[in-house]
Amino acid sequence: MKLDKLVGDRFKEKPADCVIESHSLMLRGGYMKFVSSGIFSQYMPLKRICRKIEQIIREEMDAIDGQEVLFPVALPASLWEESGRFESVGSELLRFKDRNNAPMVLGMTHEEAAVQLVREYGISYTRYPFMIYQIQTKFRDEARPRAGLIRVREFTMKDAYSFHTSQEDLENYYKKCYDSYNRIFARAGIPEVVTVKSDSGMMGGNVSHEYMLLTPVGEDTIAVCSECDYRANMEAADSIIVNTPDAELAELTKVETPHASTIEAVCDFLKSSVEKSCKAVVYQKNMTDEYVVVFLRGDIEVNETKLRNYLGEEIHPAIITEESGIVAGFIGPKGLDNKKNTIVFDKSLENLTNFCCGANEVDYHYVNFNMERDYGKVEYVDVAKIKEGGICPVCGKPTISVSRGIEVGNIFQLGTKYTKTMGMQYLDKEGNLQYPIMGCYGIGVGRLAASVCEAHRDDYGPIWPISIAPWQVHICCLRADDEVIKAAADDIYNTLLKKGVEVIYDDRDVRAGVMFSDADLLGVPVRVVVSPRSLGENMIELSTRDKKVSKKVPKDQIIEEICALIAELQREIEEKV
Amino acid sequence: MKLDKLVGDRFKEKPADCVIESHSLMLRGGYMKFVSSGIFSQYMPLKRICRKIEQIIREEMDAIDGQEVLFPVALPASLWEESGRFESVGSELLRFKDRNNAPMVLGMTHEEAAVQLVREYGISYTRYPFMIYQIQTKFRDEARPRAGLIRVREFTMKDAYSFHTSQEDLENYYKKCYDSYNRIFARAGIPEVVTVKSDSGMMGGNVSHEYMLLTPVGEDTIAVCSECDYRANMEAADSIIVNTPDAELAELTKVETPHASTIEAVCDFLKSSVEKSCKAVVYQKNMTDEYVVVFLRGDIEVNETKLRNYLGEEIHPAIITEESGIVAGFIGPKGLDNKKNTIVFDKSLENLTNFCCGANEVDYHYVNFNMERDYGKVEYVDVAKIKEGGICPVCGKPTISVSRGIEVGNIFQLGTKYTKTMGMQYLDKEGNLQYPIMGCYGIGVGRLAASVCEAHRDDYGPIWPISIAPWQVHICCLRADDEVIKAAADDIYNTLLKKGVEVIYDDRDVRAGVMFSDADLLGVPVRVVVSPRSLGENMIELSTRDKKVSKKVPKDQIIEEICALIAELQREIEEKV
Repeated sequence: MKLDKLVGDRFKEKPADCVIESHSLMLRGGYMKFVSSGIFSQYMPLKRICRKIEQIIREEMDAIDGQEVLFPVALPASLWEESGRFESVGSELLRFKDRNNAPMVLGMTHEEAAVQLVREYGISYTRYPFMIYQIQTKFRDEARPRAGLIRVREFTMKDAYSFHTSQEDLENYYKKCYDSYNRIFARAGIPEVVTVKSDSGMMGGNVSHEYMLLTPVGEDTIAVCSECDYRANMEAADSIIVNTPDAELAELTKVETPHASTIEAVCDFLKSSVEKSCKAVVYQKNMTDEYVVVFLRGDIEVNETKLRNYLGEEIHPAIITEESGIVAGFIGPKGLDNKKNTIVFDKSLENLTNFCCGANEVDYHYVNFNMERDYGKVEYVDVAKIKEGGICPVCGKPTISVSRGIEVGNIFQLGTKYTKTMGMQYLDKEGNLQYPIMGCYGIGVGRLAASVCEAHRDDYGPIWPISIAPWQVHICCLRADDEVIKAAADDIYNTLLKKGVEVIYDDRDVRAGVMFSDADLLGVPVRVVVSPRSLGENMIELSTRDKKVSKKVPKDQIIEEICALIAELQREIEEKV
Repeated sequence: MKLDKLVGDRFKEKPADCVIESHSLMLRGGYMKFVSSGIFSQYMPLKRICRKIEQIIREEMDAIDGQEVLFPVALPASLWEESGRFESVGSELLRFKDRNNAPMVLGMTHEEAAVQLVREYGISYTRYPFMIYQIQTKFRDEARPRAGLIRVREFTMKDAYSFHTSQEDLENYYKKCYDSYNRIFARAGIPEVVTVKSDSGMMGGNVSHEYMLLTPVGEDTIAVCSECDYRANMEAADSIIVNTPDAELAELTKVETPHASTIEAVCDFLKSSVEKSCKAVVYQKNMTDEYVVVFLRGDIEVNETKLRNYLGEEIHPAIITEESGIVAGFIGPKGLDNKKNTIVFDKSLENLTNFCCGANEVDYHYVNFNMERDYGKVEYVDVAKIKEGGICPVCGKPTISVSRGIEVGNIFQLGTKYTKTMGMQYLDKEGNLQYPIMGCYGIGVGRLAASVCEAHRDDYGPIWPISIAPWQVHICCLRADDEVIKAAADDIYNTLLKKGVEVIYDDRDVRAGVMFSDADLLGVPVRVVVSPRSLGENMIELSTRDKKVSKKVPKDQIIEEICALIAELQREIEEKV
């Protein structure tokens, strides 16, 4: 490929709305173009990167007996009604009507389509286990698309679905897939991806893992223990708070706390520690607007995902009206209407003694409140966010640190949620009807490309791993107007092409600076520079994009050296798989 | 791949709603499953066929300097508003609104997206010509999906867009693409595909060609000259009618023709030839309901596509009301209101003398009508259907025959329709702003697969060309319960896999009949049968799916013979490219 014919512009200026580097570099390098919020077209370099990623995924899925299939992008709503998700999923599910007014959806995940495809096939236990996967366009009508290819509305995804006759068999396969995913990320050049325990969210099921590329610009928050292997998405991380009860319970007293309507202000006024306080956070249920009051220790935050899972329904931050009877800023357990409102006590209050809390009266709080004595016995549940320095739920040490990461893949043990709702059954050995157990496994192709770009770049552009680079070799011919220089560069280009090497060749009549900055933006791992100075010494410059290799090679050895360097870069990646 | 693990059922019964064989065979062979009208999921065999077709297309597009890109499936309506097609295209364009109520469409073709992608890139003549293409899912909300993969709503398509600075350059590229398409169809195993001149329809532009697989079950109708190279889609074929004027014009007479309201009945009643009559066919314009009256010779039919193109707007068959003033069954030129109605005279009336036609009065016709004398000078236009035995517009002989075909691809010279409406311009050598000239080139992947199936099959299943077959070799192990037989078959399977041959291996414990009928449905070109009888003679049975080869091969030569047969089948295809 000649660079002067490559469609797409490369430019220097960082676009204004880019919050992360991969977004900026992919626009600046002519990888993609904005079409609409969260929707991009891809130019050739990105398309080539994605094709290579897809091929790696395909090979690894085939290696664990996956069968590549294809589901539709546009699906009849009836399928999603069968599973119940047509109602339960929010407005990220794009619903529309066709010309005959039939309700349809754009597939954002394909559990329903997978069950529909194999419902009749899977009627006997002898046909299990099996796994089907596709690599296909998906649409998820995100409220806030952002960060380039990290959070988009339309994306290419590999989604796989496995079907089993026992939990044990699912777990065996889940483990295979777990390893397969590690191989995929290593082959794509980011072996540093870690797995974290995750929340299954709208997918249903119990055990699930996310594959995270840890990076400060990630939009996921992860709790990582520095002492043991524990890693979990904040949404799923158990919060452990240990309170040491005071030896004696002091007398409950109602005190005036004028204008102190935040827990910090109250504690400040009372000169007590926030760790000895109980605060309230109020939500409303989406369906009924009923209030949900969460009580938790003053220094702890609510984990809305865990709260949502506990309640089993969608919630939003409350708008507290006068008629509600809730006294915002002074809410406490004692005297709060527990018929009208759902009250949740977080585990952070367990064993907390002599604490302060609201008195449900403007400008009044209680001090020396003790839950059992002053309110009654309650059930404590974990709806809190784990925090930096928190206690690890596995090793028990206060060694939790909070990192950020990009989710590059996820795997779920779905159980029978979809097979039950959609009536997929098989006859077991004994002739009894059973529901197959499912697993599902996703990787976003574009997001993976962007993640690799985040992980491997410098100030000037991406540094693509050779396994997914748009080309393997980038030739710069400085002074293409000089016949000798041009002939030498042409010769290298043509020889490499004949050997099947993927080459991008820049023989434009532009300044060396422009050539190099374009080459940096394209991020091709092996660079060959044919320049008057080196060629004068009968040498060609050979380097890697990451500058780890940078040398002059005698002209008659250049092809051999290029091929050796490509092989070396490939070996480096394979060693980490 | 072991056949017993292949997801998907094969069965014998022909599904009720299949009008063509490929539809039936693809359902019966476990290639695809119905999801919704015109929407299918693909099982592994079809997905593999489509992937191979896609790879052939990709290689041929790359060979004519195409750059693979990717456009979105979901596009903002604003892009289609720019080109004017948001309004002009009918309800086959699926329009919907996203969560923010922004109007969007599902891409059914991507001219707008292509222009949007390169509008800034193509600002200088030096950057031309270039071609970009994608292989991507499309959605077209067809009124009547039918015939399996032939007319669907969702499909995978390769669509390519080229950009040029002169008509001459476009034509040169168009010719390249024309040849490239012939190579693609030959490589996919249907070199018999022919090109026909076509109507550009809603795409705009002038010259266009369709690639047709001639088959009686095709839904397109094609006029083919048996004497010269002329071939055209009926929608686009010029109709040539030669009338020899009578020596003398007879006297115009109004005659009573009671109850004769069809042209045949009138001619029958008047004992005159239908070729000496003028009939009227009435339409209404979709936008205004205004009537369009087409006069043409009694034996000729209206070509609605040509009429639509002539009028420049959509029409539908008329509902003639009393208030219209039109006397259905007795319509004639003389006395018809040509202010209120649009009147069109087809060329088939040119030089027609002494003919009969309606008198715009119930139960009355004229005889010996002569257009110029009795009505006035009119402009004749060609809005008629060419017919069997008609005159070839190229060689002038009455040698037109009408065939049916499946359109497997099309190419269009678009001109500047999209670049003008969407404001894409470049600076030419002289510094003047110009609009680039476009071409576009499409192939439906699934439809091509179905067409190959139509062209290459027998009563028992498809006969896939080796270039796109889901597997190259199908091994049947009869009596897998016999250790010796099983070991021999396993050995062939494993040896072929090691050699990189694509093999499907049937070692199920089923009757030979079931095995062979499944093999026929999968249509794999090379079949290897390991049976007790042959193996007793130390022989293995080797055949092709089309039965042209069927022989016994000594066991120790079987691998060599299989590989030679694969090579031979590949050569046969390449020879026709």
